[in-house]
Amino acid sequence: MIVVGEKINTSRKSIAEAVEKRDVDFIVKVAQAQVDAGATYIDVNAGTLLEEEIDALCWLVQTVQGAIDIPLSLDSPNPAALAEAIKLHNGEPMINSISLEKDRLDALLPIVTLQPCAVVALCMAETSMPTTTEERVEVGSELIDKLTDSGVMLEKIYVDPLVQPVSVDTNMGVATLGAIDQIMGKYVGVNTICGLSNISYGLPERKLINRNFLALAIAHGLNSAILDPTDNLIMATMYTVEMLMGKDEYCGNYIDAYEKGIISKQ
Amino acid sequence: MIVVGEKINTSRKSIAEAVEKRDVDFIVKVAQAQVDAGATYIDVNAGTLLEEEIDALCWLVQTVQGAIDIPLSLDSPNPAALAEAIKLHNGEPMINSISLEKDRLDALLPIVTLQPCAVVALCMAETSMPTTTEERVEVGSELIDKLTDSGVMLEKIYVDPLVQPVSVDTNMGVATLGAIDQIMGKYVGVNTICGLSNISYGLPERKLINRNFLALAIAHGLNSAILDPTDNLIMATMYTVEMLMGKDEYCGNYIDAYEKGIISKQ
Repeated sequence: MIVVGEKINTSRKSIAEAVEKRDVDFIVKVAQAQVDAGATYIDVNAGTLLEEEIDALCWLVQTVQGAIDIPLSLDSPNPAALAEAIKLHNGEPMINSISLEKDRLDALLPIVTLQPCAVVALCMAETSMPTTTEERVEVGSELIDKLTDSGVMLEKIYVDPLVQPVSVDTNMGVATLGAIDQIMGKYVGVNTICGLSNISYGLPERKLINRNFLALAIAHGLNSAILDPTDNLIMATMYTVEMLMGKDEYCGNYIDAYEKGIISKQ
Repeated sequence: MIVVGEKINTSRKSIAEAVEKRDVDFIVKVAQAQVDAGATYIDVNAGTLLEEEIDALCWLVQTVQGAIDIPLSLDSPNPAALAEAIKLHNGEPMINSISLEKDRLDALLPIVTLQPCAVVALCMAETSMPTTTEERVEVGSELIDKLTDSGVMLEKIYVDPLVQPVSVDTNMGVATLGAIDQIMGKYVGVNTICGLSNISYGLPERKLINRNFLALAIAHGLNSAILDPTDNLIMATMYTVEMLMGKDEYCGNYIDAYEKGIISKQ
């Protein structure tokens, strides 16, 4: 699994405060803890800061890359912020995200095709949010086609099926799982990614729901997730399900995780 | 989900002692706790007692049915024990299990077709244990055909794909999940059932593995499981995954389970 560490996001109070104070030590500590816990990318998101966002995101890129060696996931609803942040990033970042929304697509397509990077393709249509599996696959396919036609390799594309709450519509879990399954089958080599927390919106004990949704998504082919890698319970789920799905030879990763204390007394 | 409560099994020391002493109160208490926790059937298994088994199983049937109202799963490797126990059972028991092993098949087929009962069809071939999905589906299909040809309704058949440890062969999880998927697709109306603990044999933190395997199996169509319904963690997994798979309208069962304290602080 490709794990994108989600913790550096100004929607979290402690991160917003640290970014406001430009507290390098705090941010580096949060980044390093995620690296130590197994993150492949570190997500940086300052989207809540609105007009301060661009400066903050650029500062985050320089601060985190000043201290750690793994690439970042540059995460913003604002194409202008992504355009600035990518200039400062060393190596190949992940760009989160492009979609079929016209403003975002037109602004980001030239950027993600200009330099090597991983691209999250969010299944958001030009004017609407998909609800069914079919709509997700249609939007995802259109995005994949646009990106590959522009020269992005399939292996660099991470389709995000846009997880929506089961509390709003009981079929939202199945619709997302079906989309993961179909997209992974239709485009061999492409990746799928998702954030987990939307699935449990409005329900109690959200982490339990998020963890079980991750289990089902991995079983349907998901190979990347945006999550908190310092949460041992979700990482234990990931190692366990990868083993159960035959992706852990001799159960080696599971046993390693157990020996490191990630899989603790259940 | 149809939940078969697994706790009354003489392989557990406290149960073996209670059966030996013919301790009615203890056995009834264990049965009642499983009923209260949501069991659909109560499994009774005295298989470890060998030559004492038949008497013990018959005593268990009378003891449990003397106190509680739900049907039992009569569970034995010995067809003679099942033949005696079924005579004492009021209502429709579950018979666990018939297989393609000649002695078991020849002895049990006349019994399960003589009276209304649910039948567990264990995917064990005449002389070998299946390893692949295809072998499981082949054995399961042959058992289903034999049972339905003899007059057993599809809705009364519970195919057990025979869970084997991932520690022995990394593909065992996937092989079992694939068999559940295919059997449920091929015979609409049939049930699939499994015990969970074999999957984690030889590995640490087995309950974590068993729970996650249950999650994946439900996502592949499993509609019945033999488990400990008094284990809140496994029941929480069951309620969560059924909700995520779109089988819990308005998330009502999940919220009920939360309000009853089954889904506790995660």
